[in-house]
Amino acid sequence: MFRHTKLLQFEAKPEKPDAVYARKLQELIGGAYGEMTVTMQYLFQGWNCRMEGKYKDLIMDTATEEIGHVEMLATMVARLLEGAPATATAEAVKDPVMAAVLGGMDPQQAIVAGGGAMPNNAQGVPWMGSYIVASGNLLADFRANAAAEAQGRLQTARLYNMTDDPGVKEMLKFNLARDTVHQKQWLAAIAELEADGLEDTPIAPNTLFDEEDQTHNNTIWHLSDGPDGASGGWSKGEQAIEYLMEPKPLGGPGTAPKPDPALYGTYSAAKDAAGTVKGKAKEAKNKLK
Amino acid sequence: MFRHTKLLQFEAKPEKPDAVYARKLQELIGGAYGEMTVTMQYLFQGWNCRMEGKYKDLIMDTATEEIGHVEMLATMVARLLEGAPATATAEAVKDPVMAAVLGGMDPQQAIVAGGGAMPNNAQGVPWMGSYIVASGNLLADFRANAAAEAQGRLQTARLYNMTDDPGVKEMLKFNLARDTVHQKQWLAAIAELEADGLEDTPIAPNTLFDEEDQTHNNTIWHLSDGPDGASGGWSKGEQAIEYLMEPKPLGGPGTAPKPDPALYGTYSAAKDAAGTVKGKAKEAKNKLK
Amino acid sequence: MFRHTKLLQFEAKPEKPDAVYARKLQELIGGAYGEMTVTMQYLFQGWNCRMEGKYKDLIMDTATEEIGHVEMLATMVARLLEGAPATATAEAVKDPVMAAVLGGMDPQQAIVAGGGAMPNNAQGVPWMGSYIVASGNLLADFRANAAAEAQGRLQTARLYNMTDDPGVKEMLKFNLARDTVHQKQWLAAIAELEADGLEDTPIAPNTLFDEEDQTHNNTIWHLSDGPDGASGGWSKGEQAIEYLMEPKPLGGPGTAPKPDPALYGTYSAAKDAAGTVKGKAKEAKNKLK
Amino acid sequence: MFRHTKLLQFEAKPEKPDAVYARKLQELIGGAYGEMTVTMQYLFQGWNCRMEGKYKDLIMDTATEEIGHVEMLATMVARLLEGAPATATAEAVKDPVMAAVLGGMDPQQAIVAGGGAMPNNAQGVPWMGSYIVASGNLLADFRANAAAEAQGRLQTARLYNMTDDPGVKEMLKFNLARDTVHQKQWLAAIAELEADGLEDTPIAPNTLFDEEDQTHNNTIWHLSDGPDGASGGWSKGEQAIEYLMEPKPLGGPGTAPKPDPALYGTYSAAKDAAGTVKGKAKEAKNKLK
Amino acid sequence: MFRHTKLLQFEAKPEKPDAVYARKLQELIGGAYGEMTVTMQYLFQGWNCRMEGKYKDLIMDTATEEIGHVEMLATMVARLLEGAPATATAEAVKDPVMAAVLGGMDPQQAIVAGGGAMPNNAQGVPWMGSYIVASGNLLADFRANAAAEAQGRLQTARLYNMTDDPGVKEMLKFNLARDTVHQKQWLAAIAELEADGLEDTPIAPNTLFDEEDQTHNNTIWHLSDGPDGASGGWSKGEQAIEYLMEPKPLGGPGTAPKPDPALYGTYSAAKDAAGTVKGKAKEAKNKLK
Amino acid sequence: MFRHTKLLQFEAKPEKPDAVYARKLQELIGGAYGEMTVTMQYLFQGWNCRMEGKYKDLIMDTATEEIGHVEMLATMVARLLEGAPATATAEAVKDPVMAAVLGGMDPQQAIVAGGGAMPNNAQGVPWMGSYIVASGNLLADFRANAAAEAQGRLQTARLYNMTDDPGVKEMLKFNLARDTVHQKQWLAAIAELEADGLEDTPIAPNTLFDEEDQTHNNTIWHLSDGPDGASGGWSKGEQAIEYLMEPKPLGGPGTAPKPDPALYGTYSAAKDAAGTVKGKAKEAKNKLK
Repeated sequence: MFRHTKLLQFEAKPEKPDAVYARKLQELIGGAYGEMTVTMQYLFQGWNCRMEGKYKDLIMDTATEEIGHVEMLATMVARLLEGAPATATAEAVKDPVMAAVLGGMDPQQAIVAGGGAMPNNAQGVPWMGSYIVASGNLLADFRANAAAEAQGRLQTARLYNMTDDPGVKEMLKFNLARDTVHQKQWLAAIAELEADGLEDTPIAPNTLFDEEDQTHNNTIWHLSDGPDGASGGWSKGEQAIEYLMEPKPLGGPGTAPKPDPALYGTYSAAKDAAGTVKGKAKEAKNKLK
Repeated sequence: MFRHTKLLQFEAKPEKPDAVYARKLQELIGGAYGEMTVTMQYLFQGWNCRMEGKYKDLIMDTATEEIGHVEMLATMVARLLEGAPATATAEAVKDPVMAAVLGGMDPQQAIVAGGGAMPNNAQGVPWMGSYIVASGNLLADFRANAAAEAQGRLQTARLYNMTDDPGVKEMLKFNLARDTVHQKQWLAAIAELEADGLEDTPIAPNTLFDEEDQTHNNTIWHLSDGPDGASGGWSKGEQAIEYLMEPKPLGGPGTAPKPDPALYGTYSAAKDAAGTVKGKAKEAKNKLK
Repeated sequence: MFRHTKLLQFEAKPEKPDAVYARKLQELIGGAYGEMTVTMQYLFQGWNCRMEGKYKDLIMDTATEEIGHVEMLATMVARLLEGAPATATAEAVKDPVMAAVLGGMDPQQAIVAGGGAMPNNAQGVPWMGSYIVASGNLLADFRANAAAEAQGRLQTARLYNMTDDPGVKEMLKFNLARDTVHQKQWLAAIAELEADGLEDTPIAPNTLFDEEDQTHNNTIWHLSDGPDGASGGWSKGEQAIEYLMEPKPLGGPGTAPKPDPALYGTYSAAKDAAGTVKGKAKEAKNKLK
Repeated sequence: MFRHTKLLQFEAKPEKPDAVYARKLQELIGGAYGEMTVTMQYLFQGWNCRMEGKYKDLIMDTATEEIGHVEMLATMVARLLEGAPATATAEAVKDPVMAAVLGGMDPQQAIVAGGGAMPNNAQGVPWMGSYIVASGNLLADFRANAAAEAQGRLQTARLYNMTDDPGVKEMLKFNLARDTVHQKQWLAAIAELEADGLEDTPIAPNTLFDEEDQTHNNTIWHLSDGPDGASGGWSKGEQAIEYLMEPKPLGGPGTAPKPDPALYGTYSAAKDAAGTVKGKAKEAKNKLK
Repeated sequence: MFRHTKLLQFEAKPEKPDAVYARKLQELIGGAYGEMTVTMQYLFQGWNCRMEGKYKDLIMDTATEEIGHVEMLATMVARLLEGAPATATAEAVKDPVMAAVLGGMDPQQAIVAGGGAMPNNAQGVPWMGSYIVASGNLLADFRANAAAEAQGRLQTARLYNMTDDPGVKEMLKFNLARDTVHQKQWLAAIAELEADGLEDTPIAPNTLFDEEDQTHNNTIWHLSDGPDGASGGWSKGEQAIEYLMEPKPLGGPGTAPKPDPALYGTYSAAKDAAGTVKGKAKEAKNKLK
Repeated sequence: MFRHTKLLQFEAKPEKPDAVYARKLQELIGGAYGEMTVTMQYLFQGWNCRMEGKYKDLIMDTATEEIGHVEMLATMVARLLEGAPATATAEAVKDPVMAAVLGGMDPQQAIVAGGGAMPNNAQGVPWMGSYIVASGNLLADFRANAAAEAQGRLQTARLYNMTDDPGVKEMLKFNLARDTVHQKQWLAAIAELEADGLEDTPIAPNTLFDEEDQTHNNTIWHLSDGPDGASGGWSKGEQAIEYLMEPKPLGGPGTAPKPDPALYGTYSAAKDAAGTVKGKAKEAKNKLK
């Protein structure tokens, strides 16, 4: 169960409105690596975590924080939209400055949300549940979490360079910091899994290694003609991954089997049921005007 | 530019058809972490890579391999569907064994694809471009790649346990192996970025650290009441992340500003334009029958 | 900012697992009228609410409760999936009882989530931000909220009839009750808007009545031949809406204008640019083999 | 079965083209509360209505009208796009007025539709079947209909303020009027359900009240710290809903059960199958280079 | 403007209910080539048609018919669902026949629609506006229409083989016939465009042939190793398309340019801004715990 | 299996950057008829082709070429974005030329991709698997292929008119040429199917003609009042399709059956279970505060 305080985790006050930037910030709300994603990703991971204790508690602490990040961003967007010329008409758009603002605005923030944030990305695509990952395997999921925080911090850093507003920058500095610590924590949690003896290798899931095809689990297939792949550190030293410079296909041709005649693939109509289906077809053809 | 040979990278021959399993395999074709995703993810990363040389070549080698994995899986699905009772009618379904098969089949594999694979996941949701990540930052993207291969290997491992067919298992053993080496290679490439002096910290992007809010980049906020988060290794030793046990909100209330009266938020109608809008509203009310 | 306790708002303990029902419950998690929708709908409404005070506080109280409902349902799903025969192979499926379970299961709950809930509906379609409404107009939004709770309670009632499990039924009884009180509260809040003088009519938004076309705001157009529409109470008494029994179109033909020749609509190619475009086309035709 | 006349229900003639506004109008065509939604919503409700007579006839009359609204808007969009500078090149865009128009246009209206309307919203997101509701329960659906017309009228009102074009405003006045009468009619139809004895309470569905948890169907949980929720009219008088000021969770912790080892959740790999899975993992680790 | 009669275009009466088949029929309602698609495709083509007269009238006649096809199928689905064991519980599912039905049913038809059709395909994916094409170019669109009717007839034919119900087969025979005539009519309309001199070649759009690269508009590039492509009729005779047996890339390497340092691509951080960004990064690294 | 060379199929070098045009080109990458669509459409058709030989080889040759087209366009987009003012702030936007560029840019190309292409269309909607068709019936699929190439060439032609850049135009001339030859080849392949005796009529699938309703496979229903449909060439001569000028519905009313009371459709609650459900409802009403 959750509780809420009206106070924001961190202040979200722009110095002045900027409707164009309000659209760009939507990426951090409803984009594939926005705050709605990490909120839902961590919540589902936490609820689906099978071990009570430190891992689950860390996940739920972080998940709960992220709901508050959506809140901060939604508040910032509403404030950036204050006084936005949403209802400017064609005449007004002839003023270049006004035009600049209107051309770059998110029309749905005005028409649909009445001057507030949408659960969408910067292009207006609604947030989707398919953005999140919660597999029940902590190694696989912590790696996805560190990756998500890296993409999130990268987008935040880009957006940090797209504004001069001190109030916005102040909040983004906080967001950058949280994305830093969250990257650190998920990487540390991966190390902890090993320290706890829960994972022996960095490969997820940590099993089926005997069953997997041992001939093919340490080779890179050279299938593009760039000459430098084999010169990377990954192909050197004790842990070297072998570079197969002239790889050959191991399988035969990918022929699909004869289809069910009742599904009317071209093959069956032509070859198998020639006496019946085709006969009917010919007869029908004569009837067709 | 690409070239194709009809020979599969690895054999994809089931011992016998299994229409129910053909549906499950769709997750590895068109799921969020299926082969269509890694294909497109690596292709866009390669095309968007700004440094010629080993990193780009490694990405393109792997991308090109993955197209062939979609091919192997699509071929396997078509073969698993051979002789599937797709057109069995209500009467036939009364046979329990038949019913078991029909209940678990993907109806679109028959109706839409004529007995072949769909570009969908195991629930029939079409593959989407939003599954992929290609940010132009190699550290962030390699971490996403390692995460994707971990999820992919996890799903393959689960599917490995859902079949007894030696032919299917043989192919999945190959897939498990490729997912293993691809995890290794992306992790090794992350290490290589540091070895090359391209990255100094594991935090992506590797910049803005001075600007980010230094007070908040090393604290975990204790916002769920699980008591064990602070006992993790992540809060111990030299690299310890501090656990804020009683965190307080740093911002004020998240009040949204007064909206544009022309957008008809409740506030404006009531308070601002009382003399006009409300007057009109009252008058209008009398007119409304 | 939010806080979380590990205790559920209400108990979510099935008497025994039921993997088929676990799929159906997904509709209440990630369906268009599931708990993810009301959570996000109320959160965005609250953050976008322009009047501090009772309305905003009521919205945020309810929003915060709903996050906990997603939690209860996700927990219930994980428990219903305990021991589910997710990895049963083709051979096992020949047992009718097993087949019944496997045919009705959500394959992604096993393959993707490792035996947990997905952020999807009962057919596996991911939850989407487009399900929610938060317009900034309280009358319009409260009406949408009452409607959402009605659909939610209806689906819960249907699901209540699809199980015999006392533990599941116990939780659904709680959910039914919450959907009841939430319907009451949003309807009461609509009345309160009028009591507060914030709305004068039940028509949202409460403005532009003078501007709207007065000739057409009280007539139902009889455009289907069902004879009984005009006999409804809506066409009787003081508030009667007039039934136009033989309505005629008021506009002219919907002809589209002549298109830009550079966009190659058929018209322009044929008629306008005949001397040039068509000349070229003819010439080109001769060249085409 | 349907029939069509080429005459529009109401005239759709702009005084002059306005390509920027043509994009905004897309929200009324293919947005979540646009005319495609009410068209399909009412059609499916009508086809799924189980009682012949006045309710079904009213639904079908309205559904049929709404198809004509999509037609009016699509025609208006094509006319607003007449002469749009769709093919202006980078050089032309240096003219500020031209730039203003091009920056605000929907690029797909030119590239994909050749200067016509798209089945999309104002941000280019395609209309989706998930926008509609047709549950078979008239009380629940009529409430959703009134809510949809309220959102639709609100968006129309906002768009009315975004243009000065007399021809566009004329059509929108008609649309406002239709949204008014449709709100009235669905609210009247809700009253009629009660008058007919089909519904006894405003709670949908009108059943399971004895079964629902009586302890929890009249309380609002105070879970956000806003102090004013309890001061609303909803908590006063005979129908008062009780405000639980210090609500406590009623359930235990939301622990997920032990997962199936074959699904490789972290728990199972670590604790249960230690002797087998982990043993294999360790052995495999030694083999991994 | 449209009008509706309650009479169906053709009878839609199954002999007996079949809930499993009701799910499959959803493909013809809300699939990519279902009736919702042709309805909306033809409507938008008609509204966007720039030439008054026979082409536009043919399009609108057909569009209007298709709305009635959605109606027939939705009615059929509701009737096939009569008495469906939607609320059967886990216990009941132990009966194999019941299990067969329940495993194959669409759970949303019961939970969401109350026993009616959904605006979805056979896998529950909502219909999307992106399925339709209406480009304003009649040749391009008529070809898409003929293709859509071919896919539609193919799916109908497959579904025809999946039922024994005489009532269902009767309706599908009508649908097959309509798909036949619609294919004929769109192919005839393509011929008519040429007869009218509106199109000179079968290539759409009928322009830019002089501008297009004449060296490359009649060659097939042999990029897969299948040996038989060049033996097709398409490479023979007067109209022969040349088969390039050993095609070579015509362009240089696809190198992406140096990115904007402010976007933090790996390249810029490493090479360009070494003195600044990297310096900061190193300093920051020391600070990071 | 596939192989890749770093050389592009054709050069993709703009003379100078043009960030606005980079957004428009997204339609050719990730739009419904962009290169990702034809790539995946032909790949799935090839893998699903049941006849070894010339048809399958032609499909795979073309599929392999198309992957290289996505590559060319992605490269072009990255080059068009070189030096784009992605990080210009509100102040900079006051310059009209800058504003023109920023208003028309795709914000995700900067924020998400770091200055590269996205797997999206020109409005930012992610590419979807539902765009492709691969039915297993060659006649139906070749017709869809010809239609897709026609839409693709039409969009390319429109985009050709939206730029003056000689480098861009050079590449588009190549694309136009490829779209021309691909239209020719799929039309020729349709002719070849007939020449090979695989298809007897132009109607797909080539079967069930005797079963289909012969009364209705050669009539156009006149359902819109446009008078000219019957004057088309399609209604003349030996192959004339009959125009039904006064068509009458052939079916009865589309009444839906009585629903399952347990699903709480309005009908059942009111009429069937009056003594029980309604009784409970009344009782419950008294209890409701």
